[in-house]
Parts: sequence; C-alpha cells; structure tokens
Amino acid sequence: MKALVYHGSGRKSLDERPMPKLAAATDAIVRMTRTTICGTDLHILKGDVTTCEPGRILGHEGVGIVHQTGAAVSSLKPGDHVLISCISSCGKCDYCRRGMYSHCTTGGWILGNRIDGTQAEYVRIPHAETSLYPIPAGAYEEALVMLSDILPTGFECGVLNGKVQPGSTVAIVGSGPIGLAALLTAQFYSPAQIVMIDRDVNRLEVARRFGATACVDTGQTDPVDEVMRLTGGIGVDCAIEAVGVPSTFELCQSIIAPGGVIANVGVHGVKADLHLEVLWDRNITITTRLVDTVSTPMLLKTVRSGRVDPQKLITHRFRLDEVVEAYDTFGRAADTHALKVIIEV
Amino acid sequence: MKALVYHGSGRKSLDERPMPKLAAATDAIVRMTRTTICGTDLHILKGDVTTCEPGRILGHEGVGIVHQTGAAVSSLKPGDHVLISCISSCGKCDYCRRGMYSHCTTGGWILGNRIDGTQAEYVRIPHAETSLYPIPAGAYEEALVMLSDILPTGFECGVLNGKVQPGSTVAIVGSGPIGLAALLTAQFYSPAQIVMIDRDVNRLEVARRFGATACVDTGQTDPVDEVMRLTGGIGVDCAIEAVGVPSTFELCQSIIAPGGVIANVGVHGVKADLHLEVLWDRNITITTRLVDTVSTPMLLKTVRSGRVDPQKLITHRFRLDEVVEAYDTFGRAADTHALKVIIEV
Repeated sequence: MKALVYHGSGRKSLDERPMPKLAAATDAIVRMTRTTICGTDLHILKGDVTTCEPGRILGHEGVGIVHQTGAAVSSLKPGDHVLISCISSCGKCDYCRRGMYSHCTTGGWILGNRIDGTQAEYVRIPHAETSLYPIPAGAYEEALVMLSDILPTGFECGVLNGKVQPGSTVAIVGSGPIGLAALLTAQFYSPAQIVMIDRDVNRLEVARRFGATACVDTGQTDPVDEVMRLTGGIGVDCAIEAVGVPSTFELCQSIIAPGGVIANVGVHGVKADLHLEVLWDRNITITTRLVDTVSTPMLLKTVRSGRVDPQKLITHRFRLDEVVEAYDTFGRAADTHALKVIIEV
Repeated sequence: MKALVYHGSGRKSLDERPMPKLAAATDAIVRMTRTTICGTDLHILKGDVTTCEPGRILGHEGVGIVHQTGAAVSSLKPGDHVLISCISSCGKCDYCRRGMYSHCTTGGWILGNRIDGTQAEYVRIPHAETSLYPIPAGAYEEALVMLSDILPTGFECGVLNGKVQPGSTVAIVGSGPIGLAALLTAQFYSPAQIVMIDRDVNRLEVARRFGATACVDTGQTDPVDEVMRLTGGIGVDCAIEAVGVPSTFELCQSIIAPGGVIANVGVHGVKADLHLEVLWDRNITITTRLVDTVSTPMLLKTVRSGRVDPQKLITHRFRLDEVVEAYDTFGRAADTHALKVIIEV
C-alpha cells in the first residue's frame, strides 16, 4: 500500500509499505477514505517530537471503512464507516475511566507517533471499539475528518477548559485551524464577545466570517490596549492560547479579567514566564490539556444537527499520491491561505 | 487610643492615636478584644506593599465588640460580639455578587493597608453588615481570630481551589501558618494522603501532629523523589503552594499528577518559570486567589461543631502594650517556633 513515511528531520516521502496486520484481539484495520495534515505533523518533520522515529507512517486524523477486526471486537464489523480519533483509548485504565483518554496507559496520542498513522491506504487502530466512532456513510464524511483532532481540541482544551458561558467575554490568541475550531465551538455557549487576535490578516478575515465579534491585527494594534478598550478596562473572562509560544501565553496573562480562565491549547516547546507577582491575587485559573476526544460523540451530534459546520475549515483537497504537495501547501499557509487540507485516499 | 503604627520601611511603634469615627452610614466602630499578626504585616514592614502608606495602623484580623454603628446598619448593634473579616465587601458590586469579595470595587483587602487596621483599641469597619460576622461571646473567641484570614485563606485558596476530594493525594509546600491552615481544612474532605513539605523541622513536627500523613524535610530529602515514591510515581492530585517564591512554585510543577491542580496560596513578589514544555499536555490546572472569605460562615460552623480546632495554631500571647515584642517573636519564628500570636487588647 501507499503511505507517507517520515524519514527523520526534514525528510518524508510517499512510499510503498506492507499492509498493516491485526496485532491484538482489540485491534481493527481501517481502509482510509479521507485524512488530513495537522500542525503537529509539521512539528514531527522539524524533529521536535522525539517519540516519533524514522520509518513511521504519519497522520492521526481521518475517516474510513472497517476492513478487518480482531477477535475481541464485537461492536464494529467490516464495512462500517468510522471516524478515527487521534487519541487511542483502552477504556479500562484509571485515566480512561476518568475521561482522560489522552493519558491512557496503553494509548493516548500514539497514531502517527509511536505507531503507524493514517496518511496511508490502511491503518491499524488499537483499542478499536473505544477509539473509532461509527458515522453515516457519505454526506458529512469530509467535515467529520475535522472531528478526529482539531474540533475536539479547540472545544475541550479551549472552550470547555476556558468555561465559556452565556454573556462571557472571550479572546482567542491565534487564528489558525485550532483557534478557528475554538471560535466555532465557543459559539455553542453564546458568549457576548469573541475577540480574535492574530498577525495574519487573511486568517482574521476568516475569523470574522466564522463569527468573531472583533479581530485584532497585532501588526497594527496593541492587543492589550484593544482588548481592554473592548472590555471596559476589565479584560476577558476567558483567554484561549492557540499558538504555543511564550509571547502569546504572556499576552493571555495581560488580558485576563479577575476571576478569568486562561485555557492553553498551544503545543509549547519552551517554558514561559508566569507573572505571579501580578496574578497571585487575581483569582485566575490556568489550564493545560492534551485533547481527550471525550467530546467526540457530542460534537458528532452538533455536526449532524447543523449546529456547527466544520467543513468550512477545509480550503484545499488532494489525492494520496499528491500528499507531498499537500504538505507543501499546508506548510506555507501564510502564502497559500491553507487552513485544513483534505487528502482523499 | 493605643495603636501599632507603620512609619515606613522597617519602622513601627505603639502610638497614641485618636479614636476612629464613623465615615459612612454603613460603617461600624468595633472595640477590639483580640487581634493577631499576619505574615503580610511583615511584608508591609519590609516596604513590599506600596499601597500601605506610613502613618497607617496595621492589622486585618481580630474579634471585638460593636461600639457604634452608622445609620444604615440594621443587623448589628452596639454590644454585639463580632469576627472581623480581613476582606471588606460591599455585597453589592459585580464582584461581591459573584462571591469574589476580594475584588470588591470599594473594599477587598483594605484594612491595615489602605485604611487603618485592627492592631488598636478601636477600628472602623466599612461595609459593616457584610464584613463582620456575629459570634458567641467568650468560648471560642481566641480560636475565631484565626477565621479572619488564615483559615479561609488556606481553605479557599488551597483546599477549595485545589479540589481536594475523598481519596485524593495532596502535597502542601510550606508548613507555616497558612500551610497548616490548609492542612487542617483539607481534612474536611478525607484525602488519602497529605504530604507536608518544608525545611523547618519544628513546623514539620507540628504538621505531623495536625494530621499530615507524611512530612518531607527538604534539607534532608529530595522532595520530588519522595513525593513520587509516596504516590507510586504518579505525583499528587493537588499541590498547594503556601510559600510564595519561584522555587516552591516550580516544585509544585514537578510533583503534580496528570489531571491535578496546583493551587497557589503564596504571595509572590517576582515572576516564576512555568514549564509549559512539560505541562502543556498534562491536563493540569493552576489557580491563584486572594481569599474572598466567602467560606467564613461555613468555617464558623466547623469550629462550633468541633470539626476543626484552629486554636492549636496559637503559640504565643501578648497584651497590646507588648505588641512590638509580639512582632519580634512572630518575625523570628524559626527561633521562637511561633505560629500565630494572639494580642489581647
């Protein structure tokens, strides 16, 4: 079969690889129909993710059709259309029982990281019954690719952790795919304001179309001044960090209201300053989270009911044999205006 | 009347001052019967608290008897025994309505800071009806001085923010009065383990008597190794920071379990490193808080029922005319083994 293989820092290629085989009774083999590329895949290609070794098939998102199931799999059968969660969860360990699937002792984020991933014709999914979600064939398939990772990440790490509520004021720092996913799902809770902060004018324009009540171009305007102006000098009830660098995390500290929540979504490679000398008495909360995908069933219902349309995050489409070009388009997003790219298998 | 007056960095004296007068219809004048000294008073004397100007009477804790009430005060009358909250709250502003009394727009921590405080024969209490709590005369009076600040601070900022639950594992970094108040009130929720961490052997011995399940002397043992040993390599569900320096806040980051809460109680004067490169995917929460004293009615009930005995935090007693000596004893706690000192007026 064809698969996009990581060959060490900076190197990848579309290779011929053997079909995956069932390795445990709880596994399933899924024939991929659509997958996508995540910002995390770019991090891997930079050599930032040491758990991902050369030779690994990348990808942790996608939808497909069950091809084969292990002996212990009873709730799925060949032919079933399924959504693949980026998080594999056994459903049995202490963390899974608490809904912290991301910390599953035999799962978590392993697809396209510690084991071969979804940018291929077939993929082996461990703990299949608790890591795959049956979906209707056809209609929503492309949109549902956004539910493998990006939508639950923005929703769980940003909106749920950030305690977005009716009437609250929200700032989202970073208008990339994850920030936009937070923007879309924050609207479930009817906040009064959602202020989008970025330095990319195109992405801010997208944010405005997606429902942001204000957009702050950090190249033109001081974001602290602007957020304070928009909130009567108080700051926001919820600041969602969707970039992953110290400066954006520190910006969140400067715009948070007393009693507010800073919900970190970004993947950080270095430490950041925490200004406890200012914040110690502000009654604030800071949260971190790797997506658990515990909200996937809920999000599936919101897509089916039309309450959210994640399809509008998709800007480009490629076939699997064009996957290297897809990486190029996704990697040069400032030029190509790419948000999410769909790869049809 | 006699009062302990701050005269600028490093200087204080017991002075003769005029009696306080009612300044608003919602004020009360309280004749102090007992007060105490807080670590924050020592910070003021170091010149760390710029809002507190020379000439200020210090103190924000104590119990007394209502001497005079303003025209708008109906629920209190002269002769009533009352507990003085360290936080003055109007009960009407947006923050007070949300239970965030510490951020009251015309109150908050003002006693012995922006206005004259309780280390005196009489004190003016603004917003009297929502800043004073009627108490029974006599029996518990000395113990109740601990409910002005220290007990609600350890309870709200540490135990409640830290989400201490039955069966959970708790570490308290800092075994001073505030850490010990957190230790006493954490036991309301029946955690499985409470590990006390300090470098003062005497304070750890006190913690052991007060119910700590393990004590870690950081002069003898690496606290990270020891906490990991005690928790099967997982870390604690709740780490309460009760010191207020970068190293202890960073220790909390090293011992927190996935899904855990770091509850900051310490007053910080400088920023700290936040290791987001490690913590971004750990599903942790960090909280800060200035005590709101919203739990004071609950804590009064726990004292009356004998469920907690804050009197055991009291190690020394002085009269008001010995208050300078009391400061000396409290300030040299490592030598004097002082925890809380009572000043009888």
